[in-house]
Amino acid sequence: MHFTVPPVSLLDRVRVVLCQPSHPGNIGAAARAMKTMGLSRLALVQPMRFPDAEADALASGATDILGAVTLHENLDDALAGCIFAIGLSARSRELVGEILSAREAAVEAMRQAGQGEVALVFGTEMSGLTNDELARCQSLAMIPANPAYSSLNLAAAVQVMCYEIRMAAGENRVPCAPAFPLASQDAIELLYRHAARTLVALDFLNPQRPKRLLPRLRRLFARTRLEHEEVNILRGILASVDAVIAREKAKEKGGNC
Amino acid sequence: MHFTVPPVSLLDRVRVVLCQPSHPGNIGAAARAMKTMGLSRLALVQPMRFPDAEADALASGATDILGAVTLHENLDDALAGCIFAIGLSARSRELVGEILSAREAAVEAMRQAGQGEVALVFGTEMSGLTNDELARCQSLAMIPANPAYSSLNLAAAVQVMCYEIRMAAGENRVPCAPAFPLASQDAIELLYRHAARTLVALDFLNPQRPKRLLPRLRRLFARTRLEHEEVNILRGILASVDAVIAREKAKEKGGNC
Repeated sequence: MHFTVPPVSLLDRVRVVLCQPSHPGNIGAAARAMKTMGLSRLALVQPMRFPDAEADALASGATDILGAVTLHENLDDALAGCIFAIGLSARSRELVGEILSAREAAVEAMRQAGQGEVALVFGTEMSGLTNDELARCQSLAMIPANPAYSSLNLAAAVQVMCYEIRMAAGENRVPCAPAFPLASQDAIELLYRHAARTLVALDFLNPQRPKRLLPRLRRLFARTRLEHEEVNILRGILASVDAVIAREKAKEKGGNC
Repeated sequence: MHFTVPPVSLLDRVRVVLCQPSHPGNIGAAARAMKTMGLSRLALVQPMRFPDAEADALASGATDILGAVTLHENLDDALAGCIFAIGLSARSRELVGEILSAREAAVEAMRQAGQGEVALVFGTEMSGLTNDELARCQSLAMIPANPAYSSLNLAAAVQVMCYEIRMAAGENRVPCAPAFPLASQDAIELLYRHAARTLVALDFLNPQRPKRLLPRLRRLFARTRLEHEEVNILRGILASVDAVIAREKAKEKGGNC
């Protein structure tokens, strides 16, 4: 017999491991960064101070993640149960087997997350992961950065990496812009004819020497994909101009008061 | 006459505009985020406090960017000379013409930067960009985020957006892992033959019923792309095992002491 199992989000299979973070503010900011990207599992290896009021303050609305933090004596303990660990580093190391960009690493992590739990491992603020810690990771990931200044803040690195994880998990959608009904071709042609009449009446367009005025206006509006309501607004403006011209003509005829 | 003009990096064409930032720490952290991604031009519209020691502290090694900040009375002034402005927002707006993901926005910004200066515009920490500010941007960009908690810290949003700009500018390389010479096919075949002999001598492999042991070992090593030095190490280990077996056999022959 088979039962339908509710799908596990791949994001729930990702734990973020911070090794010996010095500043509790960074722990809080990392929790906030994780939560914005839909990650929730934070593991700390020997944090200098935790829990701490500064961590809570920087976590903002992500204190639930701090409340669920797991504390570990060493990295092996923090990685227990994981089938894949990616170590983040700002520099290459001699014996590392594979270096991936943050984007490649996120794609690989999501591929592995189909089979089990994966970890993103970050080192201490000052010097990053030790060689010993990195030796416990299958891959080293680097965030492409300015070679002259590649020092991302710890929480900023967590933010970028969790962002790439979310993108790699396919959670890359943003809302569509509010859609208004588009104008029909015939409504747009009527607008151009109306505009041509008004521009002639304004003496701005000379029908004998039209130059490229109308094609330029067509080009401008073609790029915008005019909406129905916008055509109405533009024709309303043209109608007001028509009315001014008509009033002026009527005054001319009415005499020289 | 034509002179060769030194190429302008597209990254130099990007300015980051922060509208009314409340916390000087965020200004400093944003400067640091920019510098890690190779961006340098920061414009501030009516910052609450600037310059400020907290901004300097959070900028870490990026105080040169703070030193070159431009201050502006309003957004129009900060955008002067730009041909394209992207407004970052965590939510959609009624009259926005186009919403892009951060990645799409970065690609578009780099396309436009071929023609002139472009701006990334960020609103105040609490409420983001006003509708009036957003109306000055051609596109709205959103960072895909957890719908239940989409509140990125200001500097974190700057970090992600500048990271995507760097990636879109093609500056997405990370170093290769240190390369050691790979083993030749024949050296690897000699390793397998050696391993088979040793495993038989160990009584771990039965030549009459080999099962799948050797194909599994081939599969394991095929995935790793063995290096020359690694083949030497593995053969060295096999040779030590051979030596132990030989010593044991010699003792058996030598008697029952």
